[in-house]
Amino acid sequence: MNLLTIIDYIGTFAFAISGIRLASAKRFDWFGAYVVGFVTAVGGGTIRDLLLDVTPFWMLQSSYLIITALALGFVIVFGKYVIRLNNTFFIFDAIGLGLFAVVGIEKSIAHDYPMWVGLIMGTLTGAAGGVLRDTLINEVPLIFRKEIYALACVFGGLIYYICFYAGLSPALTQTVGAVSVILIRILAVKYHVSLPNLKGEN
Amino acid sequence: MNLLTIIDYIGTFAFAISGIRLASAKRFDWFGAYVVGFVTAVGGGTIRDLLLDVTPFWMLQSSYLIITALALGFVIVFGKYVIRLNNTFFIFDAIGLGLFAVVGIEKSIAHDYPMWVGLIMGTLTGAAGGVLRDTLINEVPLIFRKEIYALACVFGGLIYYICFYAGLSPALTQTVGAVSVILIRILAVKYHVSLPNLKGEN
Amino acid sequence: MNLLTIIDYIGTFAFAISGIRLASAKRFDWFGAYVVGFVTAVGGGTIRDLLLDVTPFWMLQSSYLIITALALGFVIVFGKYVIRLNNTFFIFDAIGLGLFAVVGIEKSIAHDYPMWVGLIMGTLTGAAGGVLRDTLINEVPLIFRKEIYALACVFGGLIYYICFYAGLSPALTQTVGAVSVILIRILAVKYHVSLPNLKGEN
Repeated sequence: MNLLTIIDYIGTFAFAISGIRLASAKRFDWFGAYVVGFVTAVGGGTIRDLLLDVTPFWMLQSSYLIITALALGFVIVFGKYVIRLNNTFFIFDAIGLGLFAVVGIEKSIAHDYPMWVGLIMGTLTGAAGGVLRDTLINEVPLIFRKEIYALACVFGGLIYYICFYAGLSPALTQTVGAVSVILIRILAVKYHVSLPNLKGEN
Repeated sequence: MNLLTIIDYIGTFAFAISGIRLASAKRFDWFGAYVVGFVTAVGGGTIRDLLLDVTPFWMLQSSYLIITALALGFVIVFGKYVIRLNNTFFIFDAIGLGLFAVVGIEKSIAHDYPMWVGLIMGTLTGAAGGVLRDTLINEVPLIFRKEIYALACVFGGLIYYICFYAGLSPALTQTVGAVSVILIRILAVKYHVSLPNLKGEN
Repeated sequence: MNLLTIIDYIGTFAFAISGIRLASAKRFDWFGAYVVGFVTAVGGGTIRDLLLDVTPFWMLQSSYLIITALALGFVIVFGKYVIRLNNTFFIFDAIGLGLFAVVGIEKSIAHDYPMWVGLIMGTLTGAAGGVLRDTLINEVPLIFRKEIYALACVFGGLIYYICFYAGLSPALTQTVGAVSVILIRILAVKYHVSLPNLKGEN
């Protein structure tokens, strides 16, 4: 199990936790919380794989199901303490976002799609799971209103492509791309960087 | 038309009725009710077929459209009496759930997927239509909070696989699998078996 | 750039505007509004292409992304005046509906599907983007309750198929089909033609 796989699993765990926590606030039962956690974790990549017409990644290995089960067990056992770990999960979530974005871009490149498709696929992989989560729990998707989230995937993705076309090694390109997404996300939250909303202008 | 087809159509009818009734409670017009009924009936199988990368089953024969139209006509004509038939529809719905779950599992096996994918596909086929229905009518999905529903597909699916690996005949395996789902569902409702919810623990 | 492409782009622009306006009413930020506008414009065709198992049309050329960006810029700059243009957008939206419906039917015919699949694909192409839009902004889908909208695609589609089977030239069939959808939609709004809703009958 290499470093990339470990990071992928950490990101999956963090995304699943975010789904499970929101589901629990809506008084979902364990099964409902599990489903919402799983959809949050794999939903973005599933939409990407359906659009690219490849087999959804989580159907090829059972790890993602198991990690979601671990996340559910974690929330059941440590429920009271999970709230205090907000900052930890925020970092995990940002790491997952960065890695997922890079995975989405690389899958698009592997299927010979142009850069703008890669940026969309990276953003979908990182952010669409959260949109599905909010739809399932019947809330307006959070990412459309709070600090820069999905846009971190777009900007970090652009930096990925700059490295890619500059001929950097794949490992370096991946690292710079993912770290860019993570940093943009962390800085956006730290300094409360939000996009303007439309209503404020009218 | 063999017995399996008849049961499939009865399940479709029951699922369509459940969508149409909930849409009517939201004052949808006939067309909206028809769409919600159709999505409830075929939505789970459609998600399954998209994930398995096969043509959605309802695009290969028009029966499902017609059955949904019959269900709409039924609610329009017998609207007042439909509520009294709650128990009848509950049984139909449970039968549909059991059959749909088995269909989902068998499609996965036909595409050489492992057991855990089959269990997911069985559960999606049985329960995802109801989730799409609740999303369309803008409600929190019912199955995430009420008595065991989707989980009946998981348990019944496990029993299916036990029969399958034990070498029972396909007909017997199908019957035992579907009947298991139906019984689990009926017993769960009769004895109010629910999973705990997370909030209660915190 | 031929006439059909121009009409396609106008329809896309009108659909994107409708998504952006509703997102702005929910105080989405610019990115959220862009996503909702894009999903409104291309969502119906994307569902169609996933069901037909072809590459989603907007992944083959970047025009749809750019048109959505223009629509966003338009709302940002002319926000105050957009409301006064309601009638203009209504006409654009109806034109988009008619053209999208015809595109959906023709893609189905190109893949050898029977008429009833073509009617569904035409209706999905025209109307499903609006349903996704309403799901994203967490509202009950408008088209299930207001004047005839999706049904205009069904009726116009039937007229398309009558011309098609009568052996009219493709150009004439397209024109008659699209104009039928547009006229049905405009007349339905002008004369407040709605379908009955179910509750009213009970």
